[in-house]
Order: sequence, then structure tokens, then C-alpha cells
Amino acid sequence: MTSPSNTGHRTLPLPDLNTAFPGPVPTSPHADHVEQQLLRWTEEFPLLAPADERRSLCSITGQGIARALPTADPDSLVLCAELFLWLVAFDDVHGEATAARDPALLVDRVGELIRVLADDDESADSPNEPFAAGLGDLLARFRARGTPTQYLRLTRHLLDNFLGLIWEAHNLPQPERVTVRTYCAMRPDTSFVRTIMATAPIALAYELSDEQQSSEPVRQLETAVAHLAGWVNDLASYARETERLHATPLSLPTLLMAEHRLDLPTAFAMASRMCEEQAEVARTRISELTSDSSPPLTLHAQALEHIAYSFIWHVGHDRYAESTTAAARTVALHPTTGSPSCP
Amino acid sequence: MTSPSNTGHRTLPLPDLNTAFPGPVPTSPHADHVEQQLLRWTEEFPLLAPADERRSLCSITGQGIARALPTADPDSLVLCAELFLWLVAFDDVHGEATAARDPALLVDRVGELIRVLADDDESADSPNEPFAAGLGDLLARFRARGTPTQYLRLTRHLLDNFLGLIWEAHNLPQPERVTVRTYCAMRPDTSFVRTIMATAPIALAYELSDEQQSSEPVRQLETAVAHLAGWVNDLASYARETERLHATPLSLPTLLMAEHRLDLPTAFAMASRMCEEQAEVARTRISELTSDSSPPLTLHAQALEHIAYSFIWHVGHDRYAESTTAAARTVALHPTTGSPSCP
Repeated sequence: MTSPSNTGHRTLPLPDLNTAFPGPVPTSPHADHVEQQLLRWTEEFPLLAPADERRSLCSITGQGIARALPTADPDSLVLCAELFLWLVAFDDVHGEATAARDPALLVDRVGELIRVLADDDESADSPNEPFAAGLGDLLARFRARGTPTQYLRLTRHLLDNFLGLIWEAHNLPQPERVTVRTYCAMRPDTSFVRTIMATAPIALAYELSDEQQSSEPVRQLETAVAHLAGWVNDLASYARETERLHATPLSLPTLLMAEHRLDLPTAFAMASRMCEEQAEVARTRISELTSDSSPPLTLHAQALEHIAYSFIWHVGHDRYAESTTAAARTVALHPTTGSPSCP
Repeated sequence: MTSPSNTGHRTLPLPDLNTAFPGPVPTSPHADHVEQQLLRWTEEFPLLAPADERRSLCSITGQGIARALPTADPDSLVLCAELFLWLVAFDDVHGEATAARDPALLVDRVGELIRVLADDDESADSPNEPFAAGLGDLLARFRARGTPTQYLRLTRHLLDNFLGLIWEAHNLPQPERVTVRTYCAMRPDTSFVRTIMATAPIALAYELSDEQQSSEPVRQLETAVAHLAGWVNDLASYARETERLHATPLSLPTLLMAEHRLDLPTAFAMASRMCEEQAEVARTRISELTSDSSPPLTLHAQALEHIAYSFIWHVGHDRYAESTTAAARTVALHPTTGSPSCP
């Protein structure tokens, strides 16, 4: 993430993540296959009507998940990519501005999805609505592939995502009301990053023990990657979101400006520093866990590394490129006072 | 649950659960101790201001959890009772009618609680608001007592509860819009019954294997008890809720009336039959699992039996007694056509 972001006439600083996550970004040899399978799956489950949106989403998701899980087998890759595509499409179609206009409608839709998640015998007949049907298809396949605990963890994060989208819908109209601290807690649930993390043990067939999962290094690594994923997206999409919404987006720079009374470039500089700090924490923990750990911990740390890479990579995709300049150069940040790690 | 419910001049049929769950209801010798501890805990975390409401809630919760977990040690009982009290108090204070008037406020409050649940290092300082502080206290104690998977399961159900309350808040103003099927899927999340189920393995120190947890008999038993718990509450509280809200409550009889074009007594008869069917399913599964199973399955089936008893018991408490006649007698139900198990 080395391109300065343009909003209007200003060039805004972006984080330098090359030190912690140097290129090239590893990817899977099956990336194009995954993208093709996504196009097929979205024919079966027509989540998105406009053909160009569908193609663009299949591209960024297929290529993105191929970078998040570059060593996974093709079937697992396709399954994880379909889940991520499902989440992003659900957010695009039923979340964001649509949900902000009518939050009750989003809550009702989530109610339908909870029924799919509950999956008791009485609701076993297939739903017709594409999102409910698509989710049912995905859950059945994840349940068959993962252990019950892995599946429990995955569905817990899906619930977090639904709550996150509902929370976002209620706060989009007045983003400045949200504190930076609350935003940092909720952002991983609207970026879906923890859901991707929960797919990794299923796709790569490893399992952390309970103790490993709740150990300090693993939790710190997961938290750092979770923050990083949401914040780089916020920075890269800020200009596009501002333009699209004709309003201030619910995004880290907005809240830093409001809370610390900053102008936009200073808020971008602060957010960039926050990203770099999380990238550094993540790198330290990855190095530690991959050098002297049991196999599942090493695999998990590598998975988290790739997931971080994929989020850093995705903001350079066409979907975001409109709002960033083509010139790729490292941004020299002005030092900001104080350490703005998530308050 | 054998007292007919009065609404105005009508006497409404209630289910006969004596066959599946005959009295007396087992309870813990520590019931009064638990109630006293709840009074102390609600001094430390002042969730409810009015003294009479606080006393009444400590009584029904302390005595109820003593019946849900009659063989648990005193400390575990107190912890589980405090969690259930926290949930009911949160619903009373921030959910229901208050939330229906301003759903965004409930969503914001849930956002704060998610921060407590996320429990990353950066949000480790204690919150001041009593509900956030109380939840933080409970989670720390559950985390210390349960295995990570038990804790994960518990927090997953807390998220379900939060989503359930948000869903309820958005649907309270027009309950007839909700289908019976959706209601049946959401009701366990607003009755908190699955959260109590998730506390049982922690309080009673047993652990189901993943395979046992996801086995058909266990899932059927849990689903039957989950339905039963919400529906007996719906029937017992219908008159009180109608009076309190000056409106039609979001409750099983309301939705059966709307969906099947029934009058209230017929809807009560249908709902009562549904309760009796679930009680029968639960009893069959309990007998099966306690007669020929491994120790954790037997313990789990016994726990589910006690939880069902506690929900059946609680509707006879003073909190509900106002709306039921004092005469305890078995209600002879008129046969209804068709089998109204949850559609």
C-alpha cells in the first residue's frame, strides 16, 4: 500500500507497509480457477444483478482469497472465496446505504439468515431467496469439511458480521457520533477479516488447541491483522466512499478528525501510523510463531501473514484504484505526536 | 404449568406438562444463598434502580437458576444466576419497549458490549457503565472457569441474544408482520435459554465431545427445550404483556392468530399443543440419553431436563402470577386439527 490517495486536490499520505510486508505478494496457482468458479457460483445463486459488478466482485474476491490462502487446495479456496463473496455482496446489496435508509429491513434479513444458521430440523427445507440459499449451501459445505469447533468459531464470526453490519447501518447517518475506540472494536466485524481467519484452519486442515487459540501471541497477532485489514481499506476507499455517499463516510479518518480535531491529511497521517504499528506487531508475532512453535501454530501464523497480505493487496485492485493515483511510491510520513495505537 | 390464563373475561387454555415433567421441581439447597448473592451483586453493579424490581428479579432468577442447575456448587450457581439476571435486566432496561422506541440506541449499547466481549488488550480497562462493567466481571469469571471451547460457545450465544433483542426491537411495533417460522427461530435468542444451556457444562464440569454436541439426539433435545422455554413464557405472560404494552405483544399466540386466522382461545390451544409436543420430544430424548450413554451425555441430558423444569417453574412465580388464576388444575385441551409443531 504505497500509493497516495487523492481526494479533490489534496494528496493524502498512506502507510508504508513494505517493511513489514515486502512484495511480491504470494498467490495461489489456482487463482484464475477460483475466479471462474465464483462466476459459476453467482450464476447458481444470483446475489448481484449487474453483470459488471458481479465480474468485478468475482475478480477481486477470487484473486484476494487466492492470496489469503495461497497454499490451500482448489476446493477449499473456492469455498472460502464464495463465503467472502457472499459477505461482500450481502453488504453491498442489503447493508451500507440501503440499510442506513431502512435498518429494520436489514434486521429482518438478518433474522432470516439466523434461521439458516440455526439449522434445526424444522428449517431444513431450502430457502428460495438467493442470500439465504447461498448461505445454506456454504454452511453445509463448511460443516462437512471442518470440525464442530471450527464450524462453531466460523458461525460465531458470521454473527459478529451481522451485528457489525446492523451497527454500521444505525451509525452511518451520523458517523461523527462514533468514538474511535468503539469503531476499532467494531471494524473487524464489518471488514469480515476474522471470518476469513476462521476459514483458514478449515481450508488448511490444521487445528489449534484451545490453549494455543487463546494464547497471548495468537490473540495479539489476530488483533493486529484484524485492525490492519479494516484500516488499510478505510484509507484506500475514503475518497471513493466520500464521492459515492456524497457525505462523510463512517471510516477511521473521519473519526480521528472528529475526535482529535484534525484536518484530513493529519488524520490520514495518524491512521497511516496506526496501520504501520499494527503491521509491525503482526510481523513480530509472525516471526516468533513461525520460528519456534508447534506445527499448527506455525501454520496459523503463516495463514495470518497471508491474510494480511491479501488485505494489503486488495486495495490496489481496480475496485479501489479509481481513488488512488497510479504512481506507486512510498509515502514519507510526517511524524505525528503521541502514539496513536487504537485507543 | 397448569393454571388457565385470564385475559379480561376469557379463560385461556394452557399446556399440560405434568406428563412429561411431573412435579415436584428439583431445586438446589443453595437457592436462598444464590438469591442473597444476587442482591449483593446488584449492589456492586447497579443494573436496576427500583428496589422492588431488583428484589423481584433477584428472587425469580436466584430461585430459577437453583432449579436449572440444582446439583451445581454454590459458586457456579451464583455465577450463572448473575449472568441470567444480567440478561433479563439488560432486556428490561435497554430492550423491549425502550428499544422499540429507539432501536439505534440499543444497537449502540450492544456495540459497547461487543467491545467488552472482544476483550482485546486495548479495551482491557474497566468500563464504568454498570451493564458493560457487569458483563466484563461475568466474562472474566466464566473464562477462568470454563474451557476455551465452552467459553466460545457461551459468547456465541450471548451474541445471539444481542441480535435477538435487536430483532425484537425492530419488530415490536408491528408484531403481525413476523411469520411463525421466523419467530420460532428467533425466540430461543430472546428467552436466553440457549445461553443457560451453554453455562451447564461450565457449572457442572463436564464436556461433550464435538461429535456428541452435534449428534442428532442432543440437537433435538436442545431444540425442544429451547422452543418449550420461550413458548411457556409467551403463554404465561400474554395477559400481562398485553396490559403492560396496551398493544398486541410479539408472542406466539399473536402470530398464530395472524397466520392461521384464529381467535385467541384457539391460538392458545394450538400453542399449548405445540408446547406439549416439544415437552414429549424432550422427555423421549432425555430418557434415551440418560439410560444408555457415556457420562457427559447423561449429565447434559439431566441438565437439559432441569433447565426445562426451571422454565416451566418460573411462569408460576409472582412476576407472572398476576396474570394466571390461583387455582392449579390440569387444562383439558380441545383437539386442534393438524399438527402445529413449529412450522
